[in-house]
Amino acid sequence: MPGYRSEHIVSSYEEELTQIAQHISRMGGLAEQAVASAVQALLKLDHDLAKQVVAGDKALDALHRGLDEMAVSIIARRQPMASDLRMIVTSIHIASDLERVGDMAKQVARRALQIEGLSLNPRFYNGVKHLSDLILRQLKGALDAYATRNAAEAIAICNGDDEVDALHTSLFRELLTYMMEDPRTISQCTNLLFCAKSLERVGDHATNIAEAAYYLETGKQLSGDVEELQRVQHKI
Amino acid sequence: MPGYRSEHIVSSYEEELTQIAQHISRMGGLAEQAVASAVQALLKLDHDLAKQVVAGDKALDALHRGLDEMAVSIIARRQPMASDLRMIVTSIHIASDLERVGDMAKQVARRALQIEGLSLNPRFYNGVKHLSDLILRQLKGALDAYATRNAAEAIAICNGDDEVDALHTSLFRELLTYMMEDPRTISQCTNLLFCAKSLERVGDHATNIAEAAYYLETGKQLSGDVEELQRVQHKI
Repeated sequence: MPGYRSEHIVSSYEEELTQIAQHISRMGGLAEQAVASAVQALLKLDHDLAKQVVAGDKALDALHRGLDEMAVSIIARRQPMASDLRMIVTSIHIASDLERVGDMAKQVARRALQIEGLSLNPRFYNGVKHLSDLILRQLKGALDAYATRNAAEAIAICNGDDEVDALHTSLFRELLTYMMEDPRTISQCTNLLFCAKSLERVGDHATNIAEAAYYLETGKQLSGDVEELQRVQHKI
Repeated sequence: MPGYRSEHIVSSYEEELTQIAQHISRMGGLAEQAVASAVQALLKLDHDLAKQVVAGDKALDALHRGLDEMAVSIIARRQPMASDLRMIVTSIHIASDLERVGDMAKQVARRALQIEGLSLNPRFYNGVKHLSDLILRQLKGALDAYATRNAAEAIAICNGDDEVDALHTSLFRELLTYMMEDPRTISQCTNLLFCAKSLERVGDHATNIAEAAYYLETGKQLSGDVEELQRVQHKI
């Protein structure tokens, strides 16, 4: 029954493509969780939680390698058409970004382990929480844009990165002020400088993922699509 | 003449694979140049050179997109066998690392533009030069390991990253000391902290490239190949 056999192969191929999307979704969930836990460990100086984040990063690394192998295997066996191939290659890039988001969470957690009993202005901690909420929203939005192939949401996420950058710059300046006012805080504050930088970079990876989602849906590079960006920015 | 035609296709396919390797080599050359120029701009506070590095990063970004398109096009048209496919997918990863090396160079150059007339202990500048020489050697070695499929050199590069980390940590501590001794240098020294961090991350990308080169040659993940690493580390 060639008809049955052919249908069976097609269905199984589609299952494999779905598995790739599910694999990315699983990596995304772990990456979001890692960032949220790392920030919590930092703000509450919870060293146990920080150690969990550091140890947990291996799972994300393993999933990253797994995605690569899965992608290569599908391309080799199935010889996908152009649009499926674009989806598979995009997933390789997104997995790489998510693995790096995990690295950023690990770096924040490692720095949390080096900080003991630092009391800065509570406004600063609110600022870190605000930055972390924002980048988690960006990351989730970028993964949604990928999962639902939503080009408009992808553009919105890319535009949202300006807010991440502005918030990071404001935290950065605040930390410099603390260090100048009380040089005894320099060592601790530099740890916080790098934590803020790591969070800002999670925002960059969210932008990369959104750009990849846009490319997947439209076949065009978002960074080159200046008019589209301007149109959305100015809400024309 | 089917025989002639078939041979022609094979030759042209091999040409395309060679083009991918050449494309990576070109990106590698630009990335090395960008890092070297960024460090020179930083050490000599050469703002013109720094601006050139910032502007020049677009070329690397364009080559990165070009490599992606080339890779997808070859996979789609040629349906490569497993070993060629591994080479093409590896090249996608390496191009992504090289694009990020360019980003690191741009970040150093941007910070160089923010620094005006800072005079620290000359020992510190020697340390930065030393770190930059070391990471450029690592980057070049990783690209050589990829180009010549040399697994032993790839392992050596991965092991060399410990030296990069140690040198970065030493520069980091030195900068903290300067800031504590003279809080007026805090703002400038934090710029240098991030420059040192960017250079250390170039070292991480060199390690990624070396790991990819090892995988390409052996089909095994280097990070999982603990025995091999230990054997080389202890010169058994």
